[in-house]
Amino acid sequence: MLANRVCIIGVGLIGGSLARALRGARAVGEIVGCNRDPATLQRARELGVIDRAETDCARAVRSADVVVVATPVGSMEEVFAQIAPHLDAATIVTDVGSSKGSVIAAARNAFGAVPPTFVPGHPIAGTERSGAEASFAELFQNRKVILTPLPETRSSAVAKVRALWEAAGAQVIEMSAEHHDQVLAATSHLPHVLAYTLVHCLARMDDSREIFNYAAGGFRDFTRIASSDPRMWHDICLANRDELLGVIRKFGIELETLAKALRDGNGEYLLKVFEQAKEARDRFAEKGGRS
Amino acid sequence: MLANRVCIIGVGLIGGSLARALRGARAVGEIVGCNRDPATLQRARELGVIDRAETDCARAVRSADVVVVATPVGSMEEVFAQIAPHLDAATIVTDVGSSKGSVIAAARNAFGAVPPTFVPGHPIAGTERSGAEASFAELFQNRKVILTPLPETRSSAVAKVRALWEAAGAQVIEMSAEHHDQVLAATSHLPHVLAYTLVHCLARMDDSREIFNYAAGGFRDFTRIASSDPRMWHDICLANRDELLGVIRKFGIELETLAKALRDGNGEYLLKVFEQAKEARDRFAEKGGRS
Repeated sequence: MLANRVCIIGVGLIGGSLARALRGARAVGEIVGCNRDPATLQRARELGVIDRAETDCARAVRSADVVVVATPVGSMEEVFAQIAPHLDAATIVTDVGSSKGSVIAAARNAFGAVPPTFVPGHPIAGTERSGAEASFAELFQNRKVILTPLPETRSSAVAKVRALWEAAGAQVIEMSAEHHDQVLAATSHLPHVLAYTLVHCLARMDDSREIFNYAAGGFRDFTRIASSDPRMWHDICLANRDELLGVIRKFGIELETLAKALRDGNGEYLLKVFEQAKEARDRFAEKGGRS
Repeated sequence: MLANRVCIIGVGLIGGSLARALRGARAVGEIVGCNRDPATLQRARELGVIDRAETDCARAVRSADVVVVATPVGSMEEVFAQIAPHLDAATIVTDVGSSKGSVIAAARNAFGAVPPTFVPGHPIAGTERSGAEASFAELFQNRKVILTPLPETRSSAVAKVRALWEAAGAQVIEMSAEHHDQVLAATSHLPHVLAYTLVHCLARMDDSREIFNYAAGGFRDFTRIASSDPRMWHDICLANRDELLGVIRKFGIELETLAKALRDGNGEYLLKVFEQAKEARDRFAEKGGRS
């Protein structure tokens, strides 16, 4: 048993799936769920995602060995501030936010200093769906979880959080928060921005209703992430603003260069870009074992 | 029986799948395949995709009721020119190119004028894979096929091509070539350009090898179309250059507006864009019956 009591604040797709996975692995004793929205919490309880439901954070974290904050990143500072007075000194706190620099800053603000028991974390997993209903125990199987401990983070706290994620089926990696934020801006935040922007762009065209009629399977896959929770992605974009702006700028330059080549009828350039992209994408897909 | 003999020039994903579908529907007598690459042609024959293999276009089209040109759009003018002297006056010719204005221009150049028996067409179907090996009979099931006949196109020719596609399981729609090229630039050509550009952009970053390690399922779906055949997409982009440049420009403006909002911390704007995009994408997904 890795922990007698785990408290999960925010029982949506990620929090709910972690609860299911930990229960499935018999890794913990009691799982207490806490959620701002009582209906969601009730639903999580009914679905058997959590053992006990608490709408009050202060009560929820009481006697917990580990608290997992799985709310949108924009609300984490508030959550940290609410639970701060009620945590035992030994209670380990971790989060699942998609940006780590902003979450560490939120913890610093809320706790006065980043506690040595706080382990910033981010599971690289998800679907375009959200909510406890969308949660499933296998979400983290063979997925990566990145932990970004600070120099002051207690190594026993890191080890505990690592063990929980491993029990949920994930592969755990450690890196700096800065590096995490750079990598995720490129591989996750930018693609979401591009997908949202494309669909928005098309939806605003005069004949948008008709346009979507002729979209095929490639468009469906390409835009799937534009069905993700807008509020959550609003939070993530603002939280990782600087890194995201950096990769948007890089992408914009590449797109402009490609448009110029197209305008000039420079087919060689197009072919080179497409070939290199296909090669990189095929290599990536092979590694993952699926296309 | 819709035709005694159909000749398919280019037995890749599209041509091969059409051959399989027509055979499955027992819609035609003999299917003659023709391909520039003898190995591909041999493979198509071995796979049973076609009844008879011809490397020479002139021989392949002999006595065919319908000739389907399913080569990359960049090579269609050459193919039209090769077959022109060998076609019977009644032979119907159609194509599967992703841009229609350029194919009509190619037909005009190769034939002297666009023949009344030529029916420009485009099945809105495909996968990121290519070649006869990737072909399958169900590719066109419940997919749309757009025909863009000209005023001079014989209506009996349109009816025959329509019947063949319907036999293959597709839903056939007619529109102008101009409108087709606008719609496809937005829903297909632009997404491919964005996916290729994103992967190319990431692959050029210093730590690209590592970056791809942390890409998740959303990235996998988003970039699937970047595994498409580079040569084919090179052709399509050049063939539909003007319309594609138009939508790239519109997209670039939207992306720049979003980046400005992000820089300004204008969360309301981000949320509005993301919400509208999600709404449009969910509506599109519902209609298709899959997410």
